[in-house]
Amino acid sequence: MPTYTAPIQDMKFLLNEVLDISQYSDLPKFENAPEDLADDILEAAAKFASGVLQPLNMVGDIEGCTRHDDGSVSTPSGFKDAFDQFVENGWPLLGAEQEYGGMDLPQVLGIAVSEMMSTANMSFAMYPGLTRGAVEAITAGGTDEQKAKYLPKMSSCEWGGTMNLTEPHCGTDLGLLKTKAIPQDDGSYKITGEKIFISSGEHDLTENIIHMVLARIEGAPAGTKGISLFIVPKVMVNDDGSLGERNSMICSSIEHKMGIHGNSTCTLNFDDATGYLIGEENKGLRLMFVMMNAARLGTGMQGLCQAEAAYQNALEYAKERLQGRSLTGPKNPDGAADPIIVHPDVRRMLLEQKAFAEGARAFLYWLSLHNTLEDVANDDAVKEKAGDYMALLTPVAKAYVTDGGYKSATNAQQIFGGHGYIEETGASQFVRDARIAMIYEGANGVQALDLVGRKLALHGGRPLFSFIAEIDAFIAEHEQNKELAAFLDGLKGAKENLSEATTWLMENGLSNFDNAGAGSHDFLQLLGLTSMAYMWAKMAKAALEKADSDDPFYANKLHTGRFFLARILPDASAHLAKIKSGAEPLMAMSEDGF
Amino acid sequence: MPTYTAPIQDMKFLLNEVLDISQYSDLPKFENAPEDLADDILEAAAKFASGVLQPLNMVGDIEGCTRHDDGSVSTPSGFKDAFDQFVENGWPLLGAEQEYGGMDLPQVLGIAVSEMMSTANMSFAMYPGLTRGAVEAITAGGTDEQKAKYLPKMSSCEWGGTMNLTEPHCGTDLGLLKTKAIPQDDGSYKITGEKIFISSGEHDLTENIIHMVLARIEGAPAGTKGISLFIVPKVMVNDDGSLGERNSMICSSIEHKMGIHGNSTCTLNFDDATGYLIGEENKGLRLMFVMMNAARLGTGMQGLCQAEAAYQNALEYAKERLQGRSLTGPKNPDGAADPIIVHPDVRRMLLEQKAFAEGARAFLYWLSLHNTLEDVANDDAVKEKAGDYMALLTPVAKAYVTDGGYKSATNAQQIFGGHGYIEETGASQFVRDARIAMIYEGANGVQALDLVGRKLALHGGRPLFSFIAEIDAFIAEHEQNKELAAFLDGLKGAKENLSEATTWLMENGLSNFDNAGAGSHDFLQLLGLTSMAYMWAKMAKAALEKADSDDPFYANKLHTGRFFLARILPDASAHLAKIKSGAEPLMAMSEDGF
Repeated sequence: MPTYTAPIQDMKFLLNEVLDISQYSDLPKFENAPEDLADDILEAAAKFASGVLQPLNMVGDIEGCTRHDDGSVSTPSGFKDAFDQFVENGWPLLGAEQEYGGMDLPQVLGIAVSEMMSTANMSFAMYPGLTRGAVEAITAGGTDEQKAKYLPKMSSCEWGGTMNLTEPHCGTDLGLLKTKAIPQDDGSYKITGEKIFISSGEHDLTENIIHMVLARIEGAPAGTKGISLFIVPKVMVNDDGSLGERNSMICSSIEHKMGIHGNSTCTLNFDDATGYLIGEENKGLRLMFVMMNAARLGTGMQGLCQAEAAYQNALEYAKERLQGRSLTGPKNPDGAADPIIVHPDVRRMLLEQKAFAEGARAFLYWLSLHNTLEDVANDDAVKEKAGDYMALLTPVAKAYVTDGGYKSATNAQQIFGGHGYIEETGASQFVRDARIAMIYEGANGVQALDLVGRKLALHGGRPLFSFIAEIDAFIAEHEQNKELAAFLDGLKGAKENLSEATTWLMENGLSNFDNAGAGSHDFLQLLGLTSMAYMWAKMAKAALEKADSDDPFYANKLHTGRFFLARILPDASAHLAKIKSGAEPLMAMSEDGF
Repeated sequence: MPTYTAPIQDMKFLLNEVLDISQYSDLPKFENAPEDLADDILEAAAKFASGVLQPLNMVGDIEGCTRHDDGSVSTPSGFKDAFDQFVENGWPLLGAEQEYGGMDLPQVLGIAVSEMMSTANMSFAMYPGLTRGAVEAITAGGTDEQKAKYLPKMSSCEWGGTMNLTEPHCGTDLGLLKTKAIPQDDGSYKITGEKIFISSGEHDLTENIIHMVLARIEGAPAGTKGISLFIVPKVMVNDDGSLGERNSMICSSIEHKMGIHGNSTCTLNFDDATGYLIGEENKGLRLMFVMMNAARLGTGMQGLCQAEAAYQNALEYAKERLQGRSLTGPKNPDGAADPIIVHPDVRRMLLEQKAFAEGARAFLYWLSLHNTLEDVANDDAVKEKAGDYMALLTPVAKAYVTDGGYKSATNAQQIFGGHGYIEETGASQFVRDARIAMIYEGANGVQALDLVGRKLALHGGRPLFSFIAEIDAFIAEHEQNKELAAFLDGLKGAKENLSEATTWLMENGLSNFDNAGAGSHDFLQLLGLTSMAYMWAKMAKAALEKADSDDPFYANKLHTGRFFLARILPDASAHLAKIKSGAEPLMAMSEDGF
């Protein structure tokens, strides 16, 4: 049976030593999270994640969700009890606004807690995750009345929330959507249509579910300019906050998926269901993107989470499984064989996972710090830069980290050998669960196109130039630090590849947009790799400051960083070469030639 | 529902234009396969694979195999009927020896037929695949009596066969195995032990199953030097060939696996089962490796097969799914959107699959040609080189092609977007099925260690030097061919990386074996990539000779090859850099530091 121990020391190292969040303690949100409180929260979250959620992870995979004839859906055994505890303990309130009972903590702390929950049980963590997305959309676009009506119960997760975008014929291209909204005399709308792949779309965890539904108001323009966003409660909410009648929508089926069986992925049929416009008519996509952008960071996190979970269990197996002898002589001479962690190639697979997880954790925490700074910083330059980084790097966080998460989970499964292919060890579940994160919330190819097609040119290229300038400044600041030299050299090399790729795209992507599209995947990977190199340089700097420490954590951090430099970073130049080969090798052949 | 159309034109291109097998028509085996007969066989196999086996592929995944209380196992609906047809049509006999009713065709033709069967239905194709492995072991090590007793029925697949190696505590390290064999007065042995992960271990497809079982004779030395191989029939075979009593072994459970649900992967318990020694006492591993080496080429083929199946279905989806518009303006202006194949990144994913599948097909066919030449060539130099290539490149065929197959299947699933994550489209099954091929028949890391630890140094390095010399000769022979220049340059670059990596390993791997182990994975990938570059150069040369053809096949082959050069081959230098970083980044950290 798989286990999970939250990497609290690594989390604290990032928060306190690498990011030094105490420097922001006089800013809103950060002032709510002094270090001792933050420590208490991390410890308690770790206990809940390992003790309550993790034991249900495989249960969720095996049992899945069950749809009953009346359209109701049961979650796997134990999910309801765990969810009740989750709500009673107030976990959803960490990041929520104080007026709805929340603690209003900065996202960088919330993300550490989310990481633990999602590593322990990804399917479970999606229920509050989607709810949080809906809360953010209502916060951003709702009327005061709507906020008062929905946000208190949703912020605490007493009610659930969902995002309803996809229809059978459209996902990425929402301009094609057909769900209709017909205005009613009382200001509400009647919503009719079919939505598919709705995560957490129906379940027994909460007494109500507030669906956020994209639909086209009768007579609205075709395409993306005619899409509005609606609040469609599963159960109508009376003005006094009590629950009324069941709304006219039903879960018509749940999907048979490769993984995340514990989350109910539903087809929802709306049949003249009552909905309420949120935000402006025909401006629904803009509001949906408020949810999407937050969700994309969370989806990136899922990549890290499955990498971490898979790594921990593969590591335990690699230390216990006796098979063969070390190439340099027995390391466990009294045993029948050596543990397989003595084999260099097993260590390669483990270190790929470890270096990825630690680098990705740093990257996501660092980025989520900027997400909060964009809101609360005093300094306009800091705010601007934070906003730029969120725009530029959210697609990277989503796609680079989920690609790496799947690869890490696959590596972990490989370490288990044949035992990784049977379901009893849980190694397969990590792979199957991790797989979805590359697809939903905008498939990774769509993220790459967003990056090169929009984010790169934003404000005349300011976000990327700003990021490169920060890297240059870091290198210049520390160039006298001889022990950091290898990290700075690695970072510099990656950055030079990135700069050259950017120049190439700017020179060739405008004359032929297909050149930008053709290089999009590799550019995103290269930017992700450069971000990781920057994080590893920052972590190495912090670890070197503790070179005299008795705690082996710091020396091991440096070992892992050196592995990153030697065995992961060399891919940067291959990405550059691929980008510079342009569109021709992809576009020359006609469709019939495939 | 997924479909499959056998790529017969590509197969014939390889057999007739790239490999030109007619040049061997006066050699044994090849003389049995004139081109018109070969064509007829390919057409008939394609029909059987697409018409009979492919429709059962998803059935097998959904139903899986069922173990009954008496230890018997039912295969999925339709498998028994299809298997009966498979036997009646004589498919297993293509490569079988003539004295057992076989056609004794060269492996390069047999592998084309196997490819079709395994692409259509991997789980199904494993039943005859394992049987063929057992046939080869008996052929190699059996007495005349044993051959006469088992081979006729096994060659035709009227009886099945299995390989019983793995036990709960050992897979890779067979020296640890515990299954016991106690000699009996009549010359037979009583076999007792538990074997796990036995593919095709129990089923209802054949009236008997001949298990090839590794066990330790009472009193034999510990470790690999005390392992013997036994024939253990499921049902005892009387001297007149009729079936006798049920042997004392039973399937105690079937595994719950990530994929290949249609194949029964069993735990088999032998309880004083009657077995017959095959080959010499304590020399069982050597004989088992006869089976393994053949099986490894077949396992590599499974990687290609799942890549091809996944590619074909992703391609169809990419042509049909309307979503978004081309970056360079609408390509389907009358439709609601353009088919997603207009997007460069979708083409990238498709071309990665196509370039991989066509390159891997060429590589496996080319290698299997050498497998036969090793046996039948007149020229000792040809025989020697063929044997060298089989030794050197079998681990590459196994590991490089299965890694690529999984990656290709994952790419295909990505093209399906959310529809790829639900089981109805079959995209998930290709990924889940492909995954096992990286693990069984020697995990890919074990292949890499076999390559650098044994094959590289074999005969003083002759196999690799011989391969490099062949590449050099090819480049020299065609250097005047201007249209081939890009392919020759790409091949030359890869080869130079390979040579440099080899030199580095020879200089550093002997002084510290961990340097060899640390570079093993990347060396195998680099050798695989160089092999692909050689295959693409050979294919390009053949295609350029048909530059005036009206058939777009040749121009498209060149397009695909140019994609390989631009977008896949650049990884070669990253592999070299990783190899040259040596063992230190992997081995410096203590186990506790992970």
